[in-house]
Amino acid sequence: MGNVAIKKQETGPLEACIAELVTLLGDRLSRVAAVRSRHGRDESHHDGADPDAVAFAQTTEEVAAIMRICTRHRVPVIPFGTGTSLEGHIAALEGGISLDLSGMDRIVRVSPDDLDCTVEAGVTRMQLNEHLRDTGLFFPIDPGANASLGGMTATRASGTNAVRYGTMRENVLGLTVVTADGRVIRTGGRARKSSAGYDLTRLFVGSEGTLGIITEITLRLYGIPEAIRAGTTCFATIAGAVDTVIQTIQSGIPIARIELIDEASITAINRYSKMDLPVRPTLFLEFHGTEQGVAEQAEMFAAIGAGNGADVFTWASQAEDRNRLWAARHSAYYATMQLRPGAKGWPTDVCVPISRLADCIRETQADLAQSGIIAPIVGHVGDGNFHLIFLYDEADAAEVAKVVEMNGRLVARALAMGGTCTGEHGIGYGKLAFLEAEHGPATALMRDIKRTFDPLNILNPGKVLVMD
Amino acid sequence: MGNVAIKKQETGPLEACIAELVTLLGDRLSRVAAVRSRHGRDESHHDGADPDAVAFAQTTEEVAAIMRICTRHRVPVIPFGTGTSLEGHIAALEGGISLDLSGMDRIVRVSPDDLDCTVEAGVTRMQLNEHLRDTGLFFPIDPGANASLGGMTATRASGTNAVRYGTMRENVLGLTVVTADGRVIRTGGRARKSSAGYDLTRLFVGSEGTLGIITEITLRLYGIPEAIRAGTTCFATIAGAVDTVIQTIQSGIPIARIELIDEASITAINRYSKMDLPVRPTLFLEFHGTEQGVAEQAEMFAAIGAGNGADVFTWASQAEDRNRLWAARHSAYYATMQLRPGAKGWPTDVCVPISRLADCIRETQADLAQSGIIAPIVGHVGDGNFHLIFLYDEADAAEVAKVVEMNGRLVARALAMGGTCTGEHGIGYGKLAFLEAEHGPATALMRDIKRTFDPLNILNPGKVLVMD
Repeated sequence: MGNVAIKKQETGPLEACIAELVTLLGDRLSRVAAVRSRHGRDESHHDGADPDAVAFAQTTEEVAAIMRICTRHRVPVIPFGTGTSLEGHIAALEGGISLDLSGMDRIVRVSPDDLDCTVEAGVTRMQLNEHLRDTGLFFPIDPGANASLGGMTATRASGTNAVRYGTMRENVLGLTVVTADGRVIRTGGRARKSSAGYDLTRLFVGSEGTLGIITEITLRLYGIPEAIRAGTTCFATIAGAVDTVIQTIQSGIPIARIELIDEASITAINRYSKMDLPVRPTLFLEFHGTEQGVAEQAEMFAAIGAGNGADVFTWASQAEDRNRLWAARHSAYYATMQLRPGAKGWPTDVCVPISRLADCIRETQADLAQSGIIAPIVGHVGDGNFHLIFLYDEADAAEVAKVVEMNGRLVARALAMGGTCTGEHGIGYGKLAFLEAEHGPATALMRDIKRTFDPLNILNPGKVLVMD
Repeated sequence: MGNVAIKKQETGPLEACIAELVTLLGDRLSRVAAVRSRHGRDESHHDGADPDAVAFAQTTEEVAAIMRICTRHRVPVIPFGTGTSLEGHIAALEGGISLDLSGMDRIVRVSPDDLDCTVEAGVTRMQLNEHLRDTGLFFPIDPGANASLGGMTATRASGTNAVRYGTMRENVLGLTVVTADGRVIRTGGRARKSSAGYDLTRLFVGSEGTLGIITEITLRLYGIPEAIRAGTTCFATIAGAVDTVIQTIQSGIPIARIELIDEASITAINRYSKMDLPVRPTLFLEFHGTEQGVAEQAEMFAAIGAGNGADVFTWASQAEDRNRLWAARHSAYYATMQLRPGAKGWPTDVCVPISRLADCIRETQADLAQSGIIAPIVGHVGDGNFHLIFLYDEADAAEVAKVVEMNGRLVARALAMGGTCTGEHGIGYGKLAFLEAEHGPATALMRDIKRTFDPLNILNPGKVLVMD
C-alpha cells in the first residue's frame, strides 16, 4: 500500500547484536538480501519491510538465548513460521531480526488415548495431519495456507471446520513460550479443564508475536469420523444461501463445514481448479458422524435448503471427490487472484453475529456494486465470518483510495452489527486502525499488558497495538 | 482450618471510604455483623473473614463509583455473588468491602437467533434457565450450587455438561468489567470468533475477582435437544466404570453428561435423596441429540459398558425422572456431608488427562484406605475431573493434619500425571500453595498481570496469587 512508516535500527547496537547471534548460530544467521526479503513480506497486499537479519532457531533454548541477546541490545524480533499471514504480520517495520522457527518441526508427542499432541512451532498443519494418518486422529483447523501451527496459534487462526471444532482458541491446551527477556515458561497443561490461575494460554493465542515467542504447542486432536459426507448445493440468490446457513446453525445441526462461495468466486474456482460448478451462489458442506448420523444431518439440511430455493445437491461420498472439493475451496484465494490479470489482491475478513450475516453480506454487495469494485466473497458463514478479496490496480491511486474506503465501511458495518474487524486473519499492521474502534477503552488494558510483557517493545513492534 | 492470616485495614482510610460509600449507596451499605459474616464465608471448610462492610450495587456505573472510592482510600474490594465458592474465595482476608452483585439480576438481552444472551453478574444459572424456558434454549453450565453467572465466570466454573458443552471458558463471549480504578471496559463481543487483539475475555474468566469486577456477561446458549436420554449403570469395580468413560470419550460418542459416583457417594445419595440405587460404582449418563441419534449413542455406549462389566442399565426417559436423577447428583455434596454426622466436609477437585484417570482414582482410593480417611468420590469424569469430599473432625488436630497431607498428595499426584490442582473450583486462598507447583515460572507472568491491573492490590487480595 506504500503507506507504512519504516523505522531503522541504529547501526551500533544492531551490529553488536548480530555479531553475538552469529557466534550463537553460525551460518543459521543470514544477512543475504533474498533471505531477508522473503522473511519481510507475507502473502497479503501489504508492503513488506525486510529484517536486518534472519535467525534460524532449532530449539526453545536457542530461542531463549536469541531473546536474551536481542533484549540486551534492544533489537526487535519478529517470529516467522511460513510467511502466509494476511495483515502484514511479519513485516520488519523497525528492522531487527526475523526469527525463523520453521526448523523447529518436530512432533514431540502424540497421545491417541488423550486425543492430544505437542508439536514444535514450525510444524505445519498438513505435516501434523500426515503424521497422524495412521492413528485415526486429525487436527481440524485449516486456514487456506499450509501454515505453521505456531503462526496459527499466534494469529488465532481458524478455517472451514471451526463451526464444529472451534478455532485455535478452543484447541490449544498449553504452550511453551519464550518471554522478551529470554525466560522459558509453560502455560496451560494437558487437563481438559482447569481453574488454576490466569489463562495465559489464551492470552498468547492471538497475540501475533507481540507478547512472547511461541515455541511449542499442545493441541487437541479428534477422531476421524466414521462417516463423512460432503457436497455442494446452489441457490438462486445469496439470501437463499445465507438464510439456509442461519437456519442450519439455529436448528443445531452439528454441521462440520458450511462455506459460502459467491458467483464471482465460483467462476474463479471453475477456471483455476478445472471444475464445472453452476455459476450461482453456492454452499460447500460437510457432515461428520456415524453413517446414520450423517444421513440424518444431510436430510435435515436438505429440507432447510429446499425451503430457501436450493435446487441442486451434489454429494461427494468418495474421499477423493471430497478432497478435490475442499482443495478447490482452499484455493479460492489463489483462484480469485487470477480473475483480473495484473490486479493486486487484498484479502480481508470480518465476522458478525449470525442473525446479521444476511444483512451484512447484502449491504456489502450493494456497496461493492455501487463502488464498482470487484471483490469475490467466500466465507466460513457458519461462524458469521466472511472474506472479500478486493482486486485492484495498485498503480491507480483513485482505485486504491476507493478500496481503502470500502474496507473501512466493511469494518464499520460489521462493528455496527456487533461483529469484529477480523474473524481469523488478525490485526497485523493492516488493521491497526480498527482495533480501538472495536474495543474502545479495553484497548488501554491491552497496551498495559504489552508494556508489562515487552517493556522495550522489541516483540514484533508496530503490530496489533499502536504504542506511544 | 484456623491457619489463615488476617490483616486489618487502618481505621482512618477505612472509615473515610465507608462514609463516602454511605453517601453513594445509603442503606445499601451495611455494617450489620450478620450481613458481614454472611459475606465473608463461603460453602467450604475454609475459615471465613468478615468484610468491614457490604456494598449492594445495582448498576455497572455504581460499581465503577465504588471502585473509584475504594481505590482513592486503598480499601480492598471482594466481589460477591451467591457465596457458594469452595476455596475461600470471598473471605475478606484483609478486611475491606464485600461488593454484593446479587441485586444486578437483570437479563439484559436474549437473542434466540444468535444463540446468545447478555446478563448482569448477579443472575443465577437457574434464573437464566427459567427465563429461557419458552425459547427452546438453555445454558448448560451447572456447578452444584445455583451460583451467579458472575461468580461462575470469575471461577471458570463448569459442571456435569462440560464434557459436551465446555466450561465458562468456552461459553463466555464477552464481558463488561470495572477496573480497579473504576473504568468500565467491554471485552470480546458477539461474533462467534475474532482475531482482533488480546483475549481479555479469557483473562478475566477465572481471575476470581482479582483483576476487575465483572458486571455483565455475554453467554452462548444452546437449543434444547430434540431428544434427551438419561440413565444410570453400575459396575463391579471403579476400574470398570472409569475404563468405560475413557473408551466412550476416545470413541467420540458426543455424550452430554457422564458422571462417576463411588459406593460411598451412592450410599449418601440414597439416604439424602431417598433413592434406592445399587451400592456399586455407578455412572450417571445423559445423551443429547435427535431421537435416532440418542438411540444410537446409547447403543454404542452400552456396548462399551458391557465390555467393562456394566450390568444394570436404568433409563430415565421422562423429564421428571431425569430431573430427579440430576437433582440427586447435584445434591451429592450436601448428601455426603450427612454421612458422618458432626464431621466437617472439605470438598476438593483435581483434573488429569483422561488416560491417567483410572490410575489417579485407583491410587487415590488406595491412599485414602491406607490413611483411614473417609472421602467419597464423585466426578465429571468425561473431562478427567473428579471431586473428593474429606469428612473429618475439625477438633482432632491429628486428623486435620492427615487430611491436609492427603490433599497435598492428591494434588501432587494429579500434577505428576500432567493434570491440574483444580479442574473447576479455583484457587481462592485454599490452593494458593499449589499454583506455583503447577505453573512454575509462568506464575511470575500472572503476578505481573495482577500488578498491572491492580497496582494497589485491592481487588480480592490474598486470592489466586501470593503477592509480595
